Amino acid sequence: MNMITNHMSTAELQKLDAAHHMHPFTDANGLAAKGARIIKSAKGVYLTDSEGHKIIDGMAGLWCVNIGYGRPELGNVAKRQMDELCYYNTFFQTTHVPAIALAAELAKIAPAGMNHTFFAGSGSEANDTNIRLVRRYWQVKGMPEKRVIIARKNGYHGSTMGGGSLGGMSPIHAHGGKIDGIHHIDQPDWWSEGGDMTPEDFGLERARQLETAINEIGVDKVAAFIGEPIQGAGGVIVPPATYWPEIQRICDKYGILLIADEVITGFGRTGNMFGSTTFGIRPHIMTIAKGLSSGYQPIGGSIIHDEVFNVVAEGGELYHGYTYSGHPVAAAVALENLRIIQEEGIVEHVRDVAHPYLAEKWHALADHPMVGETKLVGLMGSIALTPNKATRAKFAAEAGTVGFKVRERCFANNVIMRHVGDRMIIAPPLVITPAEIDVLIERAKKSLDEAYKIVKDEGLFVAK
Amino acid sequence: MNMITNHMSTAELQKLDAAHHMHPFTDANGLAAKGARIIKSAKGVYLTDSEGHKIIDGMAGLWCVNIGYGRPELGNVAKRQMDELCYYNTFFQTTHVPAIALAAELAKIAPAGMNHTFFAGSGSEANDTNIRLVRRYWQVKGMPEKRVIIARKNGYHGSTMGGGSLGGMSPIHAHGGKIDGIHHIDQPDWWSEGGDMTPEDFGLERARQLETAINEIGVDKVAAFIGEPIQGAGGVIVPPATYWPEIQRICDKYGILLIADEVITGFGRTGNMFGSTTFGIRPHIMTIAKGLSSGYQPIGGSIIHDEVFNVVAEGGELYHGYTYSGHPVAAAVALENLRIIQEEGIVEHVRDVAHPYLAEKWHALADHPMVGETKLVGLMGSIALTPNKATRAKFAAEAGTVGFKVRERCFANNVIMRHVGDRMIIAPPLVITPAEIDVLIERAKKSLDEAYKIVKDEGLFVAK
Repeated sequence: MNMITNHMSTAELQKLDAAHHMHPFTDANGLAAKGARIIKSAKGVYLTDSEGHKIIDGMAGLWCVNIGYGRPELGNVAKRQMDELCYYNTFFQTTHVPAIALAAELAKIAPAGMNHTFFAGSGSEANDTNIRLVRRYWQVKGMPEKRVIIARKNGYHGSTMGGGSLGGMSPIHAHGGKIDGIHHIDQPDWWSEGGDMTPEDFGLERARQLETAINEIGVDKVAAFIGEPIQGAGGVIVPPATYWPEIQRICDKYGILLIADEVITGFGRTGNMFGSTTFGIRPHIMTIAKGLSSGYQPIGGSIIHDEVFNVVAEGGELYHGYTYSGHPVAAAVALENLRIIQEEGIVEHVRDVAHPYLAEKWHALADHPMVGETKLVGLMGSIALTPNKATRAKFAAEAGTVGFKVRERCFANNVIMRHVGDRMIIAPPLVITPAEIDVLIERAKKSLDEAYKIVKDEGLFVAK
Repeated sequence: MNMITNHMSTAELQKLDAAHHMHPFTDANGLAAKGARIIKSAKGVYLTDSEGHKIIDGMAGLWCVNIGYGRPELGNVAKRQMDELCYYNTFFQTTHVPAIALAAELAKIAPAGMNHTFFAGSGSEANDTNIRLVRRYWQVKGMPEKRVIIARKNGYHGSTMGGGSLGGMSPIHAHGGKIDGIHHIDQPDWWSEGGDMTPEDFGLERARQLETAINEIGVDKVAAFIGEPIQGAGGVIVPPATYWPEIQRICDKYGILLIADEVITGFGRTGNMFGSTTFGIRPHIMTIAKGLSSGYQPIGGSIIHDEVFNVVAEGGELYHGYTYSGHPVAAAVALENLRIIQEEGIVEHVRDVAHPYLAEKWHALADHPMVGETKLVGLMGSIALTPNKATRAKFAAEAGTVGFKVRERCFANNVIMRHVGDRMIIAPPLVITPAEIDVLIERAKKSLDEAYKIVKDEGLFVAK
């Protein structure tokens, strides 16, 4: 790193950051006034900031550092690959070993029939690829009118124009526009939207909105459905058990393509290699990124079922691709990450050790006076904050007010836990140990207690 | 790398590649039948394939390896950064030193007033950011109707839904759709479209299409104009000298934002740090990628003028960003790349040594019976193939037929030169020496001679 910058004081770095670095999803002036927290280093499940605080990372960076921080093997591979072949493209009838090897490895670990990968630089880019792939699929099949993709409100599929439009978050649409041919149905969030229905009935009702939408739009216009097995950025919304089987039934019945966005749920997060396995989904395309490289390198992609690949290939050249599709360094690092995940049994660790241990403590948080629903699948969890567990009431204050207060206490207590509105969410590195889970839970509980006191003192513990 | 894969034979690797790797911009079945060329390693301006061929790379990968392949300093930085902080996000009021340092460095080398960078993972993503930025800018200014972006036919701005729509390439639009609010005017390609006009008059005419479009669409609807200083993927189309000053005048007159897509022209390619300097453009936003890291890492971004940054910041949170925005390893490597470019005087090498030496030889190719226009700005060049120099005639055969034949001979002669239709283009690493330029030109000339013979023998040397 730049030696001068690296030895600046926190205040100097914050000033430089505010002067030149425009942050994602950030109120720039607000942040400039306050100063950003500067993360200097990280090892395992711990971050260290420029003031020397040791912070336990309950979010694995941004749902991505599956194998934990600071594994030297990945840096070694990056160095070796960068010296040997730092870059080459895979356009124009050329290829290279890291892209081949990673594609072959992905075919090995993906569900049966998913044999090809189209590489992108991120999950966002991969979802833009998916829009093109499914539309192209129907063009080659002679049905170019089938181009509408059905997605869910409060889903998240990235931040490109395509990804942001597939996602069902209206502020994102508002700031840049939403592309045409995307239709949103309601999300399977029983806690917030289930009313008097049982979760099972609600799951069916929400899934059947897909069928209604297909019939309203016309099956001759619908190309595909896309969903995250568990909505991540939407607040770790775990759908009722009835939801995905019904979605699958509907996709099968109408013959529309099913895209599983596995950017967060892939590579062990849910206790299986892919969330589709956990929920019994049979996707035509899986969007991958994040855990693919454990975030050590920017890389994403689409794993494509033979059914889709063969049709698109039959159509001749696909006019689409990225300079960094299959970047050799990123691919080599991803491959090393997959080796570690498999050889060290990290998926089994999630399933047999970390999940059961965390689950007991996580669900015990439901005893907290401000906590309603607690959800945990693998190492992906959420708790709903509420002023009234019995009625599942929302707070009278603007959504997110209370959640933000909890997050602020988490920040002060050196634990990273994110809030989405008034839900608190976690997705720690998959290698987290029981002892580290104890630390995570202890700090989370302390933060909840402190925030609860503040919320009560400020008169905010009031239902809408 | 994966030891088994790396020691496979060419045929085995090709088979594995065909079975699992879906290439960008490729006819998958055609490639599977033929087998991809496998690049194994690279150093300086030379690639080595799996059969041991030493290939001189006239395209710097994909216009990106500005400092040449195999500089060990970049791998060292990647290793060090990956061990220290392999990943952290810049959402949620946090930051890290590599993103700060790179943003600060970019502000130093960018034109005056361009002080902030929003990071993306690629040029495609950055252009999607730009669509949001310019539309958000006008929203905050109270003019939400100003959302149309004017771009050029045969421009290239990436392959996301946004980037692909800004680009003016109809096959890309055809395969996945084109987003709304993008309007294309004609390109300043005098050779192909200039007819009887002088280049100067033609440049003015094409620029004035912007004014016509603004008036037709309504200035109250137009947000911005975007253009590459020199169209890259479109065929290295160097606009007449009158073009950019007129574009600038029109943007100024109507107060619309100007986005310079510097993905290819940035970081020394044109003999200045940015193509905007070479052409006297005063952009509000510059799209960057490729040369930013010399392709050693996937990273892109938008360098933003204070005028735009301050307005957008005033609007509060911008609902946009990428997991890998400012990725610490990619940012650290980019910073080291910028250090090398500056400390080793690579821009000056382009301007004072490589360009003048190459220019003499490149323009001498105009003596070849199949070569018409020759263009070279910095180290970015094109030659127009033609059956009749005097009339600037196109070939009777389908566009690209003859170009492809030249490229095939280049392939056989171990020189990478790309064809775009019937234009041949080059953009070698910026560190290329005069001796290496001799090799490049010798092989290019041999390929042209061989292709010319084939074209004549096959009866293709015929005007439309």
